Amino acid sequence: MRQMKLGKAFTLMESGPVVLVTTHDGKKNNIMTISWTMVVDFIPRFAIVTGEWNYSFAALRNKRECVIAIPAADMLDRVVGIGTCSGSDTDKFGKFGFTPVPAKFVQAPLIGECLANIECKVVEIIGRHGIIVLEGVAAYTNPARQEKRTLHAVGDGSFIADGERFERRKMMAAKLPPGV
Amino acid sequence: MRQMKLGKAFTLMESGPVVLVTTHDGKKNNIMTISWTMVVDFIPRFAIVTGEWNYSFAALRNKRECVIAIPAADMLDRVVGIGTCSGSDTDKFGKFGFTPVPAKFVQAPLIGECLANIECKVVEIIGRHGIIVLEGVAAYTNPARQEKRTLHAVGDGSFIADGERFERRKMMAAKLPPGV
Repeated sequence: MRQMKLGKAFTLMESGPVVLVTTHDGKKNNIMTISWTMVVDFIPRFAIVTGEWNYSFAALRNKRECVIAIPAADMLDRVVGIGTCSGSDTDKFGKFGFTPVPAKFVQAPLIGECLANIECKVVEIIGRHGIIVLEGVAAYTNPARQEKRTLHAVGDGSFIADGERFERRKMMAAKLPPGV
Repeated sequence: MRQMKLGKAFTLMESGPVVLVTTHDGKKNNIMTISWTMVVDFIPRFAIVTGEWNYSFAALRNKRECVIAIPAADMLDRVVGIGTCSGSDTDKFGKFGFTPVPAKFVQAPLIGECLANIECKVVEIIGRHGIIVLEGVAAYTNPARQEKRTLHAVGDGSFIADGERFERRKMMAAKLPPGV
């Protein structure tokens, strides 16, 4: 995995890919699938939606850290599988054959098979909306991955992979933060 | 435009498309381009990130309503154009040739050319993060549109259109809300 500039890490999330979020509760690793996410700031900061209904939430609230891992399109069935079982009775790294890779600044592990990973600290939990604001403290990409398309959940049980790309850097120049 | 069940409207946003948000400040319509959005609740509720730096913000804060309009891939240059000029000196509906269509519950207009439109009320402005929580009160799709792909902003000046679709309804059945 190759470390990337933190100032570019928001570009891993802005397109709205479904993500895996890892936590470590002090005893064991867990993974959840989250499709309700957004960028909040270029710093980078992100928001995700989760709450008590998710087993990972207790670890996120207590440890105040996590890793956002971005899966590729060829990982779809594992992404859905992770989202439809619970860490309360399942070792998801074991069951889905993912490699936990030690992170630098958080106890939660990176996922070795993912396209990218972002180590995050919890900034604030806005409980009334289930919104958790995270700040990215380190980011990595996985240049070895052949499949580079991310997945976007529709919410009705279907998923969309990245398709055609369009370049509009010139038109957008005034709006891009420095170094991006 | 065809009204859709409100309980399904979150599926218009869950994949993370770049959206146009219309406002009406009491005198005139405006449009902004927003790529930092997420679903917050099936009701539906959405979050978008904006603030004082955006001319539309004053209308959103004062009128507490807006329309989220979802553009198709063939509208890319208009989406970028809208995001790189200001309503302070530009009539964006006029300049970009969009048709304002009266909404039912809000003063902000629907955009006739878009794939879908969601009338929204402001639930809360969380100023310290620039997060605005919106509740959808009516939603419409535009079945006449040939181009049905949405666009996803990467944040570096490039955009990705929807590509290959995958169906996993059966695996997801336990996680889908009723009627979706």
